[in-house]
Amino acid sequence: MLPKIINVTVKDVRFPTSTEQHGSDAMHTDPDYSTAYVVLHTDSELKGFGFTFTLGKGTEIVVCAVESLSRLVVGKSLEEIVRDFRGFYRLLTSDSQMRWLGPEKGVIHVATAAVLNAVWDLWARAEGKPLWKLLVDMDPEQLVSCIDFRYITDVLTEKEAVDLLLKAQEGRQQREDQMLSEGYPAYTTSCAWLGYSDQQLQQLCADALRGGWTRFKLKVGADLEDDVRRCRLIRQMIGPNNTLMIDANQKWDVDEAVSWVSRLAEFKPLWIEEPTSPDDILGHATISKALAPHGIGVATGEQCHNRVMFKQLLQASALQFVQIDSCRLGSVNENLAVMLMAHKFKVPVCPHSGGVGLCELVQHLILFDYICVSASLNNRMCEYVDHLHEHFTSPVVIKDAHYLPPKDPGYSCEMLDSSVQRYQFPDGEVWLQMNK
Amino acid sequence: MLPKIINVTVKDVRFPTSTEQHGSDAMHTDPDYSTAYVVLHTDSELKGFGFTFTLGKGTEIVVCAVESLSRLVVGKSLEEIVRDFRGFYRLLTSDSQMRWLGPEKGVIHVATAAVLNAVWDLWARAEGKPLWKLLVDMDPEQLVSCIDFRYITDVLTEKEAVDLLLKAQEGRQQREDQMLSEGYPAYTTSCAWLGYSDQQLQQLCADALRGGWTRFKLKVGADLEDDVRRCRLIRQMIGPNNTLMIDANQKWDVDEAVSWVSRLAEFKPLWIEEPTSPDDILGHATISKALAPHGIGVATGEQCHNRVMFKQLLQASALQFVQIDSCRLGSVNENLAVMLMAHKFKVPVCPHSGGVGLCELVQHLILFDYICVSASLNNRMCEYVDHLHEHFTSPVVIKDAHYLPPKDPGYSCEMLDSSVQRYQFPDGEVWLQMNK
Repeated sequence: MLPKIINVTVKDVRFPTSTEQHGSDAMHTDPDYSTAYVVLHTDSELKGFGFTFTLGKGTEIVVCAVESLSRLVVGKSLEEIVRDFRGFYRLLTSDSQMRWLGPEKGVIHVATAAVLNAVWDLWARAEGKPLWKLLVDMDPEQLVSCIDFRYITDVLTEKEAVDLLLKAQEGRQQREDQMLSEGYPAYTTSCAWLGYSDQQLQQLCADALRGGWTRFKLKVGADLEDDVRRCRLIRQMIGPNNTLMIDANQKWDVDEAVSWVSRLAEFKPLWIEEPTSPDDILGHATISKALAPHGIGVATGEQCHNRVMFKQLLQASALQFVQIDSCRLGSVNENLAVMLMAHKFKVPVCPHSGGVGLCELVQHLILFDYICVSASLNNRMCEYVDHLHEHFTSPVVIKDAHYLPPKDPGYSCEMLDSSVQRYQFPDGEVWLQMNK
Repeated sequence: MLPKIINVTVKDVRFPTSTEQHGSDAMHTDPDYSTAYVVLHTDSELKGFGFTFTLGKGTEIVVCAVESLSRLVVGKSLEEIVRDFRGFYRLLTSDSQMRWLGPEKGVIHVATAAVLNAVWDLWARAEGKPLWKLLVDMDPEQLVSCIDFRYITDVLTEKEAVDLLLKAQEGRQQREDQMLSEGYPAYTTSCAWLGYSDQQLQQLCADALRGGWTRFKLKVGADLEDDVRRCRLIRQMIGPNNTLMIDANQKWDVDEAVSWVSRLAEFKPLWIEEPTSPDDILGHATISKALAPHGIGVATGEQCHNRVMFKQLLQASALQFVQIDSCRLGSVNENLAVMLMAHKFKVPVCPHSGGVGLCELVQHLILFDYICVSASLNNRMCEYVDHLHEHFTSPVVIKDAHYLPPKDPGYSCEMLDSSVQRYQFPDGEVWLQMNK
């Protein structure tokens, strides 16, 4: 007997990361990593935990949106939800009055992600499995029944999706065993935030090399000469055989992106991430084409707001790396759609992560992607940032620059009660003290 | 001495239009036309009024977002704002923490529109002019200084924009005089909401023909046989020389849109509006191409969330009619950008309107478009819906199916105090009575 959701609570939890420039980039100069943190209370002892990620100010708007969505959730049993998960997804995303506020984008969609993440967490807990294993054990028909194919059937139909999953079943057990022993390859963004000094960058990079890291991402886009110097510095430190990626966080217009990145080509970055507006599919296509001769790919996705946008990025050959996000897309449901489309177009998925809790969540998705969809590690890796994991009840485990598969039941979304209390905005102890 | 903004108030005002199926379409079956209604209070007697349009549920989220944006507005003088309006636009849309919630899309962007609409209203009042006349009297450099060109310079630079405006100056006085005497041509959507019976449709259509209307829009997309019958009915009533348009409100996937609309081609619609997801630029391009041989254009824009999306719709030849919206785009500032891009691509602007208050606002923009940008009425017209005008202090004036230019100072955003009180949600008299 699966539990019934009888109440939804949501809290505004903010970490004052801006005080030390953690997470700083060309567009987000002072982020306070935050969450709208959702708890689904049920008629049993089980709870579901979920959240979406934000940068501080405005989290109160997402909290308000979760509260508005709650009326669609309270009273539903988990059985009723998972029996027609596509229908439940559409209930949240296509309410005939609320959809005007999106549809499926911005505040209302990240709030939907928070709620759905909590539902998936609840389901995995009810089944006593970590989320990735719940997904791995589902048969293709059931997986596909969670996806809303509206607006993507010109690229992927339900039948094609099932066929892709069936075809990838060969070797699945082997890949699961491999993941359990080796883990999934990661790269680090922790060394080179834009607000860090050269000295700090060198120190962190040296530490990371000693820790076995081989793939490094650098923030760029504020000042070209700074970028040249920092790229040279990091390339010298990591040598020619390790991997360098650069990330502009939407700083440029299309033409500027091409000329700026061309100047950094000598440092052989694997990709330029978010060169321009996340909405500019055709712009990304132009940039991709212009940078291909330099051997530089385009990566984007952390602010790509839904599957319809990813569909077009793939159709237009506008990106060479798909960066799914566990908290911006409509939870597992929409991420499944994007992973399957990426597979069809033979574009590797390299998830966006970091922030607070994003590593905890997205590891589940990329494990599933490898075991059940892509069956490849070629040009694939998952972002890792070494921040704020201590606030989670099941924090990520990194070993030799690999994510080890989570073992606890659920989607790893649960935060420590003490952290939620201390960092709640504006009344938690930490904020009261800062605002003294 | 221009006034200084000392306080921002925002109210959730909803009209229970769903009770009579006004506004019903294939995706929005029961809208309660609503606004997040903003008042800028200043240190003088002048106030600025503005709003964004919503469909009922969720308006509280937009109210919350306006409250969050208010901290960026309070304390600013109008002079400081209009001296660098581009900077002020970017202050609201690119706050380094808040932009994560968009950027420039969904709840945060419609809330921005509400605030900026109120600023433009305040400015026009301070100048003692209706907004369209304020715009018409501004010189090209000043107009262009209100536009944020970020992410659109690959299609339109600041210099090009100035040149387009300079080129269109010839005949401007003549066009202004023409508008003052004749008004701007309108079409009606009031006859054929999806929830109306055939009898109601026939009655309203007969009335409209008697009232001088020559252009009619019909909602489609729920049931093909119904659509065939209703299209036949309305075409028979209006005859072969009047104009018919059809509107699916995003009901279809791409392939379905093409096959469905092809079945309605015999009724010679001028355009199919919103055939699929508002995010699907490439999908709209496919549909445009497939329907061109039938002589049917594609119109979209009421849920096109920003100038970057419009830019691509134009680049991809994905639409033949640009439907700007006064409450979804970032107010006048972003609409100026879209009108100029549309002009460059030689695509007519036919604004979205209706709802509550949209007619009041958008008439100003389309008057400016004709007088100062397009200089053409060919294939151009502005939507009109005959609802809820009685709640405004300066309601639209329609004469012989034309919008007559507003004469009162401001952006026509101000609602009657009594209406705001009665319809405020959930505590206004109307809602208290309905929920008894």
